[in-house]
Amino acid sequence: MLMLNIGDGKGKTTASIGQIIRSLGHGFKVCLIQLFKDNDFYGEQNILLKLENLDFFSFIKKHPCYLDNISSERLKSLCDPAVDKLRELNSINSKRYDLVVLDEFNIALRDRLIDENEFVALVEKLSRMSNVVVTGRGYPKALIDMADLVTEMKEIKHYYSNGVQAQKGIEY
Amino acid sequence: MLMLNIGDGKGKTTASIGQIIRSLGHGFKVCLIQLFKDNDFYGEQNILLKLENLDFFSFIKKHPCYLDNISSERLKSLCDPAVDKLRELNSINSKRYDLVVLDEFNIALRDRLIDENEFVALVEKLSRMSNVVVTGRGYPKALIDMADLVTEMKEIKHYYSNGVQAQKGIEY
Repeated sequence: MLMLNIGDGKGKTTASIGQIIRSLGHGFKVCLIQLFKDNDFYGEQNILLKLENLDFFSFIKKHPCYLDNISSERLKSLCDPAVDKLRELNSINSKRYDLVVLDEFNIALRDRLIDENEFVALVEKLSRMSNVVVTGRGYPKALIDMADLVTEMKEIKHYYSNGVQAQKGIEY
Repeated sequence: MLMLNIGDGKGKTTASIGQIIRSLGHGFKVCLIQLFKDNDFYGEQNILLKLENLDFFSFIKKHPCYLDNISSERLKSLCDPAVDKLRELNSINSKRYDLVVLDEFNIALRDRLIDENEFVALVEKLSRMSNVVVTGRGYPKALIDMADLVTEMKEIKHYYSNGVQAQKGIEY
């Protein structure tokens, strides 16, 4: 089953974390793969790392906009291990996960750091073995067409527009 | 700060659970109040109950549509402890929570089991002391107007429409 949390609103990643907690509560095995997130900054990591049956992989700890003077080629090579991990998940049938969450891969696709066609093919194959949740703003149409469930987190109102900064425990 | 997760799509409750995990990860104190949920059924309870700094209150363990032959007056009286808890949270400044999540109160408001004006007033006061997340389909306009952040979880596509049933670890 393939599920997408998309849109410009809040709740894409937090909903996937809730999904992880729900699955773990049933004793399911879960894999979370994040890109471009400084996990130390995000509160959830402190809880998630302590939970059994969750394998947590994080690649490239910073959003590309904070990575100055880095070539596109270098960024691409930093994304390779994430794609390798996806290939590995597809190849290991013996230790498959019940739920795989792919967080913020959209940025890598947008910046052509990961090949779109290969990503879509890997996710398609994986979603036949495991429940897969993919989160982030904007994904290729092929992925949306393929998905079993798509939810748009739509921003109706946000305190950012009143000049309020990101809040600890809320946005991170 | 008052935040609402509304809409017909998936992710309202799971996003609030993710928010809880994020807040707990920063060492914040959190209170979750749920109505009408058979918590034994939902996987998340098995994880949430083990976490420190989270107080979890659940009232009326079944959705009203599964409560046959119960009078509206009786249902109302079953909701009273939930409102009492909200009053208590507003009165105890010494042991306030950093985050309070109110899940599925919309059903009680829709069926007039909880007085709308009192609920809005209690949430308004509480949101000045704590971050408050309210989840569910459809809330009074007064609450939406008052909120600092409103996200609509919008169903773009759902496997329910293909006749697929609710999935363990996904919907519950």
